[in-house]
Amino acid sequence: MLGADRRALSQDTAEDVPAAIGRASLAASPQAAHNDRDAMLARGEKTMIRNPIPWPGGARCACAITFDMDADSLIHISRPKDGHDRLYPISMGRYGPTVAVPRILDTYRRLGLKQSFFIPAWCIEQYPDAVDAILAGGHEIGHHGLIHEDPVETRGAAQRAAFETALDIHRRRTGKAPRGYRAPVYNVTQQVIDLLIEHGFSYDSSLMADDIPYRMTTPAGEVWEAPVHWGTDDWPPFAHYAEIDYLMPVRAPSDGLRAFWEEFDAQYEAGGFWVGIWHPFLTGRLARWRQVERWLEETLRTKKVWFAPLEDIIAHVRKLTLEGSYVPRTEQLPYYTGSQTG
Amino acid sequence: MLGADRRALSQDTAEDVPAAIGRASLAASPQAAHNDRDAMLARGEKTMIRNPIPWPGGARCACAITFDMDADSLIHISRPKDGHDRLYPISMGRYGPTVAVPRILDTYRRLGLKQSFFIPAWCIEQYPDAVDAILAGGHEIGHHGLIHEDPVETRGAAQRAAFETALDIHRRRTGKAPRGYRAPVYNVTQQVIDLLIEHGFSYDSSLMADDIPYRMTTPAGEVWEAPVHWGTDDWPPFAHYAEIDYLMPVRAPSDGLRAFWEEFDAQYEAGGFWVGIWHPFLTGRLARWRQVERWLEETLRTKKVWFAPLEDIIAHVRKLTLEGSYVPRTEQLPYYTGSQTG
Amino acid sequence: MLGADRRALSQDTAEDVPAAIGRASLAASPQAAHNDRDAMLARGEKTMIRNPIPWPGGARCACAITFDMDADSLIHISRPKDGHDRLYPISMGRYGPTVAVPRILDTYRRLGLKQSFFIPAWCIEQYPDAVDAILAGGHEIGHHGLIHEDPVETRGAAQRAAFETALDIHRRRTGKAPRGYRAPVYNVTQQVIDLLIEHGFSYDSSLMADDIPYRMTTPAGEVWEAPVHWGTDDWPPFAHYAEIDYLMPVRAPSDGLRAFWEEFDAQYEAGGFWVGIWHPFLTGRLARWRQVERWLEETLRTKKVWFAPLEDIIAHVRKLTLEGSYVPRTEQLPYYTGSQTG
Amino acid sequence: MLGADRRALSQDTAEDVPAAIGRASLAASPQAAHNDRDAMLARGEKTMIRNPIPWPGGARCACAITFDMDADSLIHISRPKDGHDRLYPISMGRYGPTVAVPRILDTYRRLGLKQSFFIPAWCIEQYPDAVDAILAGGHEIGHHGLIHEDPVETRGAAQRAAFETALDIHRRRTGKAPRGYRAPVYNVTQQVIDLLIEHGFSYDSSLMADDIPYRMTTPAGEVWEAPVHWGTDDWPPFAHYAEIDYLMPVRAPSDGLRAFWEEFDAQYEAGGFWVGIWHPFLTGRLARWRQVERWLEETLRTKKVWFAPLEDIIAHVRKLTLEGSYVPRTEQLPYYTGSQTG
Repeated sequence: MLGADRRALSQDTAEDVPAAIGRASLAASPQAAHNDRDAMLARGEKTMIRNPIPWPGGARCACAITFDMDADSLIHISRPKDGHDRLYPISMGRYGPTVAVPRILDTYRRLGLKQSFFIPAWCIEQYPDAVDAILAGGHEIGHHGLIHEDPVETRGAAQRAAFETALDIHRRRTGKAPRGYRAPVYNVTQQVIDLLIEHGFSYDSSLMADDIPYRMTTPAGEVWEAPVHWGTDDWPPFAHYAEIDYLMPVRAPSDGLRAFWEEFDAQYEAGGFWVGIWHPFLTGRLARWRQVERWLEETLRTKKVWFAPLEDIIAHVRKLTLEGSYVPRTEQLPYYTGSQTG
Repeated sequence: MLGADRRALSQDTAEDVPAAIGRASLAASPQAAHNDRDAMLARGEKTMIRNPIPWPGGARCACAITFDMDADSLIHISRPKDGHDRLYPISMGRYGPTVAVPRILDTYRRLGLKQSFFIPAWCIEQYPDAVDAILAGGHEIGHHGLIHEDPVETRGAAQRAAFETALDIHRRRTGKAPRGYRAPVYNVTQQVIDLLIEHGFSYDSSLMADDIPYRMTTPAGEVWEAPVHWGTDDWPPFAHYAEIDYLMPVRAPSDGLRAFWEEFDAQYEAGGFWVGIWHPFLTGRLARWRQVERWLEETLRTKKVWFAPLEDIIAHVRKLTLEGSYVPRTEQLPYYTGSQTG
Repeated sequence: MLGADRRALSQDTAEDVPAAIGRASLAASPQAAHNDRDAMLARGEKTMIRNPIPWPGGARCACAITFDMDADSLIHISRPKDGHDRLYPISMGRYGPTVAVPRILDTYRRLGLKQSFFIPAWCIEQYPDAVDAILAGGHEIGHHGLIHEDPVETRGAAQRAAFETALDIHRRRTGKAPRGYRAPVYNVTQQVIDLLIEHGFSYDSSLMADDIPYRMTTPAGEVWEAPVHWGTDDWPPFAHYAEIDYLMPVRAPSDGLRAFWEEFDAQYEAGGFWVGIWHPFLTGRLARWRQVERWLEETLRTKKVWFAPLEDIIAHVRKLTLEGSYVPRTEQLPYYTGSQTG
Repeated sequence: MLGADRRALSQDTAEDVPAAIGRASLAASPQAAHNDRDAMLARGEKTMIRNPIPWPGGARCACAITFDMDADSLIHISRPKDGHDRLYPISMGRYGPTVAVPRILDTYRRLGLKQSFFIPAWCIEQYPDAVDAILAGGHEIGHHGLIHEDPVETRGAAQRAAFETALDIHRRRTGKAPRGYRAPVYNVTQQVIDLLIEHGFSYDSSLMADDIPYRMTTPAGEVWEAPVHWGTDDWPPFAHYAEIDYLMPVRAPSDGLRAFWEEFDAQYEAGGFWVGIWHPFLTGRLARWRQVERWLEETLRTKKVWFAPLEDIIAHVRKLTLEGSYVPRTEQLPYYTGSQTG
């Protein structure tokens, strides 16, 4: 199996799988892969996920490193009056598109990975070189607000305006409409769900109701969720940002990243879905990314993992669902139509 | 002893002990078990607990994993105006009853454990499937407020109304009155103690005045305490919840859980009582629960531990106390009748 | 040397040394001990303390575990209106005098240690059994305010009244005036220094200007400082107390204590002074104290350490200073007579 | 190469290199050193820094421990009304110039290191002995504000006055104008950049836009940046300072320092630039500095590192840039001329 190449893999699956699977992971056919999993389950091997998704190419786990390239948008939105003259947080954010993103893309190129980036539209305009390099690498760029405004605080007409202005910028600068969305500070509202459905988005990636992708339906339609989790978000271990009242005790790279790898180990064992919610100015810093790169090399060498952009992972699950070969969990929205406390 | 089965155990004790004891733990008779402990103490083996409770079946330690299934009640109570439209914290909480609780119950079923859940009445109504599954597994459900309202902020008639409404919901949905109570955010007041006694509760589990169960008496009667402790609460290592001003630096699963296991080691050595105060949406997450499950398997395999619902543990101590074979520590309440600072 | 008993030690030193030194530590005479140190320094062994104090009995390091037995005073002072009805923090604090202090005293008795306790006068009156047990064990009790009021917020006549009322309670309940003082939340003011000198105190233990005891002089006289340090304070690793806005990510016992032991290792190597600033309701908890006890056993068995109450340690340094055999560092107070920022 | 002495090194380089390089690091000539690096890169050894700077003497990495000697300025600036009477934070700060700085200088002297200190002018006047000792050791002293006032809060004429008054004190007390500047709390504004250029400063060290030194240009001129990073700042692991709303969970020395060493390992491997942003009252504490000293000894013994004051490191890069043998990354300032959200 080690000799199989990536070409072979994409022939093995019904849809084109553009991202990398560890070289140890290639099964002879998708059927064989499914049989592997069935066999595993039949042998009674424990899985802690009730409805695991069959992944393409015999992969045991789907993985997406998603980078929210917020750059310095955070300081402008949190300190509207003088954020533009606070050079320290600006420089901390600029490290992302100017130093970290090229480094990350180098790694992805060398390892043959395609992954996802979520970028506020204001950042798309401020940092065109980073955006061009991301697109040139074949990566996905998702919607992440206009200038990282919190949807809970930007409602109604203001939210629609921000959302659609951002969408226009995406279309103009990337040449296509984004398929996925991640809410700034995860703060999706029902209005945002409605906007996603209205604009034909494939998925959101801001919610936490499951370990693996699931479907959300509303009276108006459906949108999928590629769920996130604080256990693989890099703000708790690495962010230290007094200006936005977020002061974590910055961890050693190995200590902070260990949490992410333990989450991966559990997802891998259970046949699940692992997503890193990272930021170039945090996990893209030299000492951290150096350790991530080594982990990627080791994982690709020894494990059967499907690294892919979220849009491909969601497309895969949707396809299985439409075919009837997989039944996803479905969350009915809106959850509530009014206050629960009277 | 390894050959003794669970039947044998329950025959060994005067009351029915429905939960698991590690297979290595079964003594031939309760008398033998007590002799074991006496012998241990007689041999001068150190114990750091002054009045250890003789546990049934020769167990060295009583253990209860208690899950507070708060689901999304927290966001509604903390953000009454728009909590119902904050989908991220709602989804974070929903993970509990929909994904984590089935997983936890699977583990308990496989290992033969009965444990305790504390559930706000609002959650009982919102998540009937989780409640039914918990009851079907033979687990205890305790009172945990109406919608997780803080008793320090909900006093007098409002507290009585919330408490008794919740009690009615428990009776209607579980078919019986709860025997135990845990205060939201641990915030028991003297009024709540009075309500527990008035309504015939067996125990509270919100206070910290000892390592092992103790008795609280008031002029109106008595109620027992199954004491908790921050060292085995999963909020400090795992919760990250800006909306309720609780931002901890989320730990790697092994790092957070290590604290709990060290607490267990100390309780086990001292012949004490170990209680986890956990939440399905935190410790029931995949990577954490996977490690808990392994710890449970190892502990049951190698240690003489009595895992039981709190109501059984308290019933056991009460029985010994009534028999006169154990003298508990007693706290006289109310502690104070007015301000201590003038 | 291992055969020398504690009797021998106290004969070896000019003053009575009531506390334990590790059995490995006894030199034949104080002169020999001083020569040992001189020899060590002469051999060019590194020391990172510029003016190390010669300790009695050939000890390389003086150590004091100091427990601030605050019990539930903190909740009353921080929530004056309803603190008396917040049973959870009351019970968390009560664990100190009722469960932890007896446990700590057991350990001290078994190991032959005398140590220091600082107790707010209100707690002395509330918890007479704990106070009697501490006195019966021969330990020191120092002044720690009336009810843990912060001296920075309680100034002038109010501070004098609180300070002197507390002093009266000490005299009445312990039979003698305290020799030492620790400010609640370390917040010594110049007025408190003046009160200490006025009332003939030997030392304060709230400040951080050095690693080892030093002298503070004012125009009115002098008082010594037994310096503290956040690196050996148990609030950062173990306290979790929302009611007083102090929410630390509670550590595993071994993880929190490791910081203290590393501080000890450095002090031991440098011939310095190690002080734990601990609280019965935190470090006296079962799992933590079990690990402390083991560390004490191991340290006493293998190291030349002088465990003593702070009053003995300060008396020793004062004596050397009066004899002219040691020159302490001196801090001139008051530091400032007015605002430094105009 | 181990036999080469420091003399030889300074002959090897075009400019005088006053600080230490590990003894294992000396190349026969600067040309050889550059060839080494070229060879390394030619052999395809990975480097995660795109434009690494050739360091003198064949060093693989430039290192600067920079100490911000803030002493007790922080409490005066944060509590202007009563800071002068808060003896605990004053004493915590005084530990820096009186105990830690002599210890740090001892280590530097023994190991032959010259490093950088940034000192608020108010501290220069308050602690002349520490300043004299730093100058006597041949170390750099940089500008760090007048009394640690935050430039974001001290703007316009007030900033100019504070900046220039501080400059005068530097000139008068150190005999020369500082070449470098670090903003209190890193908070550089565009006005400060302009003042640095106006007063002929060589570099700032408060910003985070890259891993290695870079150039900043404005319409008025240029100034270099010696970039900092939260991953090597000692406030997150060690500071605990309620009075300035900064309460971190103080780490064990080895745990806090590990983060810094991992950052070093990554910079060393990549041929980069490692800077510690430390404080005498934090990392100069006994147990921490003891571990730092050992790390320094080990690093100097085994690695090819150029330890130097920031002014020398910046002078080196500027020289290479002027010679045309290195092309730095350049940031164009001001970043913005007005609010980005209005």
